[in-house]
Amino acid sequence: MADNKKMVEAITSRDEDFAKWYTDIVKKAELVDYSGVKGCMVIRPYGYAIWENIQADLDRRFKETGHENVYMPMFIPESLLQKEKDHVEGFAPEVAWVTHGGSEKLTERLCVRPTSETLFCEHYSKVINTYRDLPKLYNQWCSVVRWEKTTRPFLRTSEFLWQEGHTMHETEQEAQEETLRMLKVYEDFYRDTLAIPAVVGKKTEKEKFAGAVATYTIEPMMHNGVALQGGTSHFFGDGFAKSFDITFTGRDNKQHYPFQTSWGVSTRMIGAIIMVHGDDDGLILPPKISPIQVALIPVAQHKEGVLDKANEVAQLLKKQFRVKLDDSDKSLGWKCSQYEMKGVPVRVELGPKDIEKNQCVIVRRDTREKIFVSLDNIVEEVEKALQSVHDGMYQRALANMQEKTFTATTYDEFCDIAKNKPGFIKAMWCGDSACEEKIKDETGGVKSRCIPFEEEQLSDVCVCCGKKAKHQVYWGKQY
Amino acid sequence: MADNKKMVEAITSRDEDFAKWYTDIVKKAELVDYSGVKGCMVIRPYGYAIWENIQADLDRRFKETGHENVYMPMFIPESLLQKEKDHVEGFAPEVAWVTHGGSEKLTERLCVRPTSETLFCEHYSKVINTYRDLPKLYNQWCSVVRWEKTTRPFLRTSEFLWQEGHTMHETEQEAQEETLRMLKVYEDFYRDTLAIPAVVGKKTEKEKFAGAVATYTIEPMMHNGVALQGGTSHFFGDGFAKSFDITFTGRDNKQHYPFQTSWGVSTRMIGAIIMVHGDDDGLILPPKISPIQVALIPVAQHKEGVLDKANEVAQLLKKQFRVKLDDSDKSLGWKCSQYEMKGVPVRVELGPKDIEKNQCVIVRRDTREKIFVSLDNIVEEVEKALQSVHDGMYQRALANMQEKTFTATTYDEFCDIAKNKPGFIKAMWCGDSACEEKIKDETGGVKSRCIPFEEEQLSDVCVCCGKKAKHQVYWGKQY
Repeated sequence: MADNKKMVEAITSRDEDFAKWYTDIVKKAELVDYSGVKGCMVIRPYGYAIWENIQADLDRRFKETGHENVYMPMFIPESLLQKEKDHVEGFAPEVAWVTHGGSEKLTERLCVRPTSETLFCEHYSKVINTYRDLPKLYNQWCSVVRWEKTTRPFLRTSEFLWQEGHTMHETEQEAQEETLRMLKVYEDFYRDTLAIPAVVGKKTEKEKFAGAVATYTIEPMMHNGVALQGGTSHFFGDGFAKSFDITFTGRDNKQHYPFQTSWGVSTRMIGAIIMVHGDDDGLILPPKISPIQVALIPVAQHKEGVLDKANEVAQLLKKQFRVKLDDSDKSLGWKCSQYEMKGVPVRVELGPKDIEKNQCVIVRRDTREKIFVSLDNIVEEVEKALQSVHDGMYQRALANMQEKTFTATTYDEFCDIAKNKPGFIKAMWCGDSACEEKIKDETGGVKSRCIPFEEEQLSDVCVCCGKKAKHQVYWGKQY
Repeated sequence: MADNKKMVEAITSRDEDFAKWYTDIVKKAELVDYSGVKGCMVIRPYGYAIWENIQADLDRRFKETGHENVYMPMFIPESLLQKEKDHVEGFAPEVAWVTHGGSEKLTERLCVRPTSETLFCEHYSKVINTYRDLPKLYNQWCSVVRWEKTTRPFLRTSEFLWQEGHTMHETEQEAQEETLRMLKVYEDFYRDTLAIPAVVGKKTEKEKFAGAVATYTIEPMMHNGVALQGGTSHFFGDGFAKSFDITFTGRDNKQHYPFQTSWGVSTRMIGAIIMVHGDDDGLILPPKISPIQVALIPVAQHKEGVLDKANEVAQLLKKQFRVKLDDSDKSLGWKCSQYEMKGVPVRVELGPKDIEKNQCVIVRRDTREKIFVSLDNIVEEVEKALQSVHDGMYQRALANMQEKTFTATTYDEFCDIAKNKPGFIKAMWCGDSACEEKIKDETGGVKSRCIPFEEEQLSDVCVCCGKKAKHQVYWGKQY
């Protein structure tokens, strides 16, 4: 395995320097390239193929829940952005401003959309007239821009790709149900497609989205115990509708304001995949979104019959899986470590001796387990292996999250965990944002992740101020 | 048909006022909404669904020809845009400039990409090292911005959606082959998917893309005889490679510049679909990209068994087609004219008498032809009808193009046709752009569309200046 060794040496160990390990993988697996534009990345073919698979899966889930795709302009006039007070305060400091078209100065500045609530509201004000026009269940796939000071590929970039759902409803209850329905869609997608467990719940007032009544969040934990805000779903009440004067004639023949939601996930999910699943040999990709699900490697391919058989097996597997048959002149060791680096969940090796025995070797990327299987059952065996990889990935991520979730009932305990044990801290909270501020300042950045739907009663008092506790909160540092 | 009449009245007649007819359709068929951002449009669900079907079909064709998708930043630093002289001269007058990020002034202005040659070149300069890295066959789906003075939905907007392919090759010949291969992909797509015939060929020097060695184009003719540049494919030689210092070690172990192409089509194609196929009752959509292929309308749906049977038929058809069963409480007339307006290629009507006879009625959108078919063969009959609609649409568009293609051998003849007969003019040309200028000025905007691949020898001299002719050119006004 000298060849193998050689490639692996180029990656920093995950336990040694997590941040460097991350950027090494992003580069070596050819996911992104840095661009000359500050904070913007080039998403290379392998990275983009992951995104395409994510898109296809999520898009199907959105359409199954009745949503339609649309496309809004990428620019927002300054006056439109300012229509909702909280919203503009939240976003104005981080938008890119277009001031000139060609050689002419614009009469009004336009910002490049950081999110599109205002554009959807402007459109909804024109197309919603009666309750018969509701609900409106729209989604948009696009890129957005938020001027970030420090950036990292996928996790925080000035431009990123995402989807943003924007819906309008006749009643408050319907809108609340939609908000939670889409959070559930994200939760299912993370678990069933990305093999990533997460804590879900409601954001505190301090952490909610600019302009929202309530923000719900999905918070997966990275391997190193740091949280990532993995997706959010917002309930807006009728606040934006009032600011944008969106009304409809109700069943009672009177004018009403509709109730609104928005929800989004982004290319940041690729960062989560890397940091939840990857190891010292590179990426480990969830089978459902891996651009290559099976790397088929002929062994001693110069020997008679090997390539023919490999081609035959590839054709068979291609009917059901995304297969890469690598018959290049690279060495076996190079190929193995290459597909490990790229996180291909299952490798199939096929050599002259295997062919003699009508068998091949299936190697799992996650456990390196080798299974000899009959070529007669190759499709079923590969399917089984992919399912096992998915399940194994989920279980390991879940175990990691459980191991790194701690409980604190006193402030000393809280600070000690925050300092020494990276992960989530479960602790009670009084509901006052002053305690959130204090905790953040005194722990080097621990923030409330969310109030879970099923709260535990860990104690009666706030872990920070000792006053009566209102909620159990998950706390943690974040990317 | 009183109901039907009522809806139809809202559209201007195509022959009366083509421009108003176009905008009426765009609005009534709910394809777009105008936005508060000058020159930018909102693409509504029905319009966007057409784009999604176009994307899926083209993306498959690109992947079948070996291309991979990527994503480049949406911003181009001013210094990067300026690296290729002709290119910056062509685009700088029409770009949107970002000058501020949040409250800070940027040290260098960024333009919102009008096209991404420069960004691809910057990336290629980093990832191309040896001939083994070639070819690079990349494509990108994104939105681009060109600051337009006068805009029209789909045809000319300040922001539009498109795909841009950017490829790099070891040899000049390979790059030239790629340029023509992708032109052919567009031609096939227009014919087989959009049912649109077109003239294809090479642009003159005057009309070619800023920075290209040669530009090839596909030019469909709209119903009113006006041309639309429907897609272009550019051969760049090694000009950009030299400006961006992209080199590779060749098989001869020496340094070489790679040869480059780019090619693109945009949401403008939806404008072509409307203007080639539509009629006074609305859109007529090519079956392959129509969001609804079959509108299934129950007749007298309150009668026992009608809805049950309609549901049964819908389930059967849904296995193969995109079907909309409309069991709303709207009138039959309203439904029929609604799906005509939306251009649904095939309508299936099913009433109590039909059910008794085990039959239904298939109505073609293009010819209004009604066919009674047995429910036993419904799937085959609908498939046949959709194919007939496609073929009929193509043949009518072809006949229109042929009828409106004229030949001129003298300048008087040319000017007379240009003035009185909208369409293409075939005429000989000396190769001098001064003649193109003169023709454009004296005919109110007739330009060279292209030099076809198979030129006819219509006369020996240029139709404009009388000097020796070099090429046969298709001429015409354009959108």
